[in-house]
Amino acid sequence: MNYFSSSFKLGILGGGQLGKMLLFDTRKFDIQTYVLDPSDEAPCKIACNHFVQGDLMDFETVYNFGKKVDVLTFEIELVNLDALEKLENEGKKVYPSPKTLKLIQNKGVQKEFYTKNNIPTAPFEKFENLDNLKSKIQNLKLPFVWKCTEFGYDGNGVKIIRQTADLENLPNVECIAETMVPFKNELAVIVCRNPSGEIKTYPVVEMEFHPEANQVEYVICPARIDEKVAEKARAIALNVSQQFNHVGLLAVEMFQTEDDEILVNEVAPRPHNSGHYSIEASYTSQFENHLRAILDLPLGNTDSKVAGIMVNLVGAEGFSGDVVYENIETILGWNGVTPHIYGKKQTRPFRKMGHVTIVNENMAEARRIAEEVKNTIRVIS
Amino acid sequence: MNYFSSSFKLGILGGGQLGKMLLFDTRKFDIQTYVLDPSDEAPCKIACNHFVQGDLMDFETVYNFGKKVDVLTFEIELVNLDALEKLENEGKKVYPSPKTLKLIQNKGVQKEFYTKNNIPTAPFEKFENLDNLKSKIQNLKLPFVWKCTEFGYDGNGVKIIRQTADLENLPNVECIAETMVPFKNELAVIVCRNPSGEIKTYPVVEMEFHPEANQVEYVICPARIDEKVAEKARAIALNVSQQFNHVGLLAVEMFQTEDDEILVNEVAPRPHNSGHYSIEASYTSQFENHLRAILDLPLGNTDSKVAGIMVNLVGAEGFSGDVVYENIETILGWNGVTPHIYGKKQTRPFRKMGHVTIVNENMAEARRIAEEVKNTIRVIS
Repeated sequence: MNYFSSSFKLGILGGGQLGKMLLFDTRKFDIQTYVLDPSDEAPCKIACNHFVQGDLMDFETVYNFGKKVDVLTFEIELVNLDALEKLENEGKKVYPSPKTLKLIQNKGVQKEFYTKNNIPTAPFEKFENLDNLKSKIQNLKLPFVWKCTEFGYDGNGVKIIRQTADLENLPNVECIAETMVPFKNELAVIVCRNPSGEIKTYPVVEMEFHPEANQVEYVICPARIDEKVAEKARAIALNVSQQFNHVGLLAVEMFQTEDDEILVNEVAPRPHNSGHYSIEASYTSQFENHLRAILDLPLGNTDSKVAGIMVNLVGAEGFSGDVVYENIETILGWNGVTPHIYGKKQTRPFRKMGHVTIVNENMAEARRIAEEVKNTIRVIS
Repeated sequence: MNYFSSSFKLGILGGGQLGKMLLFDTRKFDIQTYVLDPSDEAPCKIACNHFVQGDLMDFETVYNFGKKVDVLTFEIELVNLDALEKLENEGKKVYPSPKTLKLIQNKGVQKEFYTKNNIPTAPFEKFENLDNLKSKIQNLKLPFVWKCTEFGYDGNGVKIIRQTADLENLPNVECIAETMVPFKNELAVIVCRNPSGEIKTYPVVEMEFHPEANQVEYVICPARIDEKVAEKARAIALNVSQQFNHVGLLAVEMFQTEDDEILVNEVAPRPHNSGHYSIEASYTSQFENHLRAILDLPLGNTDSKVAGIMVNLVGAEGFSGDVVYENIETILGWNGVTPHIYGKKQTRPFRKMGHVTIVNENMAEARRIAEEVKNTIRVIS
């Protein structure tokens, strides 16, 4: 198959920032792209070859879009699964496969998959709905983590239940109650696999939390953890990937417990926030490797050239409207600092507007600059 | 000035591969772009915000395009200078300035500029036209280098004159005759400067020639030369830049003579083939630094993370038509290999179709892989 400067067509479901960053590599390789997104202002709208505006959850829209392309991928999991299955059954190459997506889209099914395949994960119980959970509350040990099984995104659909009253106002939908396991680090490993079975893992990254706000502040590569723990995390991520038998990227989020056990939290079958550092720090970025994987090309080197740290740029509280990146000129003056602006014209509190990567030969120096970046740039209006 | 996700408009004259690579950074920063190019199939056509098809040498076209934007730059020197001058006189920001371009566009003027400013360059004599040169041939020592002063590009307009007969069939235009200085290396240094006067140089790169074909095969960063010679080359490039007082990038091509003198050959006031390695190897690519410079943002770190080598991908002899990149899948399997496909659908002999960058911690290993790349990939039809 000739992908380069040819009539080959790659379809991408979703036109957000992940798609936008993927398009840097389709442009670099001159691979023709079609993008489907509901928004007329999608960050992918320019830089793809053909933009189609439409509903990602609508069967007909996704099916008809998929018919037009040679290989279909997605940058968001919330897409019409039935359409993907029908396309795959008709012989269309859909990567990752809807079979993988089906195991992941529902968090209950995903957790059961781990248990069935002996993948370490926090103990949990599944409930048809909230009423059902409430009726069995006496069997559950407080505190626990409530998660709705579907349509959660970026922390939505997750709540720590410390007392029964915390259950009030939650939606009456299928959910799980997960044991709260004390952990000392939240880690992630991105695995990449192509249809021929070539498989590679990126180094373990570490999410550093704000000591009070309990919010991820930095994604740090490599994680500042014991080499043995890192090896274990990569081995578990590799095992998860092999069990799913996925194609493309699989971001495996994990907890490192107080006694250095690794528990799988959840996975995402696509480029992931925890891999954005790779654009500047790695020999091959996660986006290029996703593209290589779904086209069954050889995978690129996942090693890092230098230490990399990522800081998310989210809309500051109290600001809505035309976005201004306050002090961006200042941070541009610092060594190894690269802002990525996703192209959303309007900011609102906590909206993901971009990220900043800090790379340096020296991790401590990268960490120092990252903190200055975090304290300097502000997304306001 | 707020450039990011704002209504600010950057105009780019020329929509070829240099513009295309610049657009990776305007997209990364979400800076709005307008591109003017004569070809409906220009590599920049997608990924810019607004594409205008038109003649870059036509006064009205360039002037009207320039009126629409806030800052105007170019990725090719062959643009209508009068229009740029009028725009600058009317207060438009044009970077590099047409004053700089005027000193560079004509090779005779450029050479005289070096002489006047005590910048070392090979001795030369200027002639109104070829007839004029022929009439004074008895004063010239053979061999010498004939160069037409205007509209030469990529080696066109340059010829080594070993005997008088070699002058036959050359155009009867303004030209120079330059003394042939034996050199052991062809070097280049890219200088970057913003309107506030911040100035940085990239490391010295070396062009390695094919021993027989006398054709550049590899651009190597850093050049494998003595540290003192490298320092001298960077200092001379810095001086050239300061004399031109340019804004943006200035690629300074130089010869290292047999006795380690540095002679300036010529300059290009834009992103340059000798800096393509920087996308993968440098902390800040030449394209990002060009963008930072013309917007008067702080310049990024020009140091390298790893050794970088670039191999040009030109159309193989004997092939014209729909392009095929033979064995590209093979080279993608090698460590640190990144092809850049410019997006031209048709190949023809010697047409610049793309380039491949090889990066590695170890220069010798990078050089070994680069040679394998060179011997493996072929641009055919």
